[in-house]
Amino acid sequence: MAHIKLLNEELPGIVGLLNFRPETARPLLLLAETLLRGPSSLTSGEREIIAASVSWWNGCHFCHTSHAAAAVAHLQCDLGLIDEIKNGLPNTHVSEKLRALLHVAHQVQRSGKDVSPEDVARARGAGATDQEIHDTVLIAAAFCMFNRYVDGLGTWAPEPNIAYKEMGERMAHVGYGKS
Amino acid sequence: MAHIKLLNEELPGIVGLLNFRPETARPLLLLAETLLRGPSSLTSGEREIIAASVSWWNGCHFCHTSHAAAAVAHLQCDLGLIDEIKNGLPNTHVSEKLRALLHVAHQVQRSGKDVSPEDVARARGAGATDQEIHDTVLIAAAFCMFNRYVDGLGTWAPEPNIAYKEMGERMAHVGYGKS
Repeated sequence: MAHIKLLNEELPGIVGLLNFRPETARPLLLLAETLLRGPSSLTSGEREIIAASVSWWNGCHFCHTSHAAAAVAHLQCDLGLIDEIKNGLPNTHVSEKLRALLHVAHQVQRSGKDVSPEDVARARGAGATDQEIHDTVLIAAAFCMFNRYVDGLGTWAPEPNIAYKEMGERMAHVGYGKS
Repeated sequence: MAHIKLLNEELPGIVGLLNFRPETARPLLLLAETLLRGPSSLTSGEREIIAASVSWWNGCHFCHTSHAAAAVAHLQCDLGLIDEIKNGLPNTHVSEKLRALLHVAHQVQRSGKDVSPEDVARARGAGATDQEIHDTVLIAAAFCMFNRYVDGLGTWAPEPNIAYKEMGERMAHVGYGKS
């Protein structure tokens, strides 16, 4: 049970929180929509992999699994990608650019101060633009917020990967709602 | 110098980043405005103290000092409050409720999973409502994002407290911009 009395206790993860406080839901949803589905030279699949990886590093099961399922929907691959992301994508073809950006995201997850000029130079050397570096840092930072919001209020989350399949498809193809 | 080439390198902290990417600036500013100046039974002064404390724990000089200066402007006290916040407010009159909420915020800063039912019960026992607990967790989580954004991109920040006086007054009385 969540740490606060939600309006609908059946709604999992962030969904019950957005329903509890519509005033803060609006900017949060607009931020997710802009970061993950807005105009960018990173694909939405790449951006959802960054979001899901950061959420895994933060130990947030709901955000990790739902955003990994959104990546599955964008990339039209199977749900095995969810556990691949947990393991650092050892068996998945991923560009050198995305691997370097995932390293930057991991540094951000630890602390903004951990991002070194060398981390950024490596991403740039692999072809990342300044805007892609900016967006990666902000996506990683934003999921350090979303993860803490979801876990800090003690929300519940379905356990198995399959329970997130439809949710991921909705996140990928319908989006995060605009109001 | 920031890790990426900003449009105007004279703009400090988050200001240069908001100017670099207006698409993401919009939801970020709307979130700050809602969390810190929107309707809430926590005063804006209390909310800025929470934001400034989390930023201090994350080691983000720009966010800490600017939001502490905003608290100064709301509370109409002197700039000594900035260093008081660094030290956990030993010489400042603060309600038991705000002290308990600051403890919840500190747990969120470490990890969402660190917030225990006892931490929440203590805040509730000191008079905090569910919405105040919600808002505290989300403010703390949001500053874990803002701090990582500002430091993860290596932005510069003015050093002395006095350099933030006018900025804090603008943040408190004009706000975070709505677009």
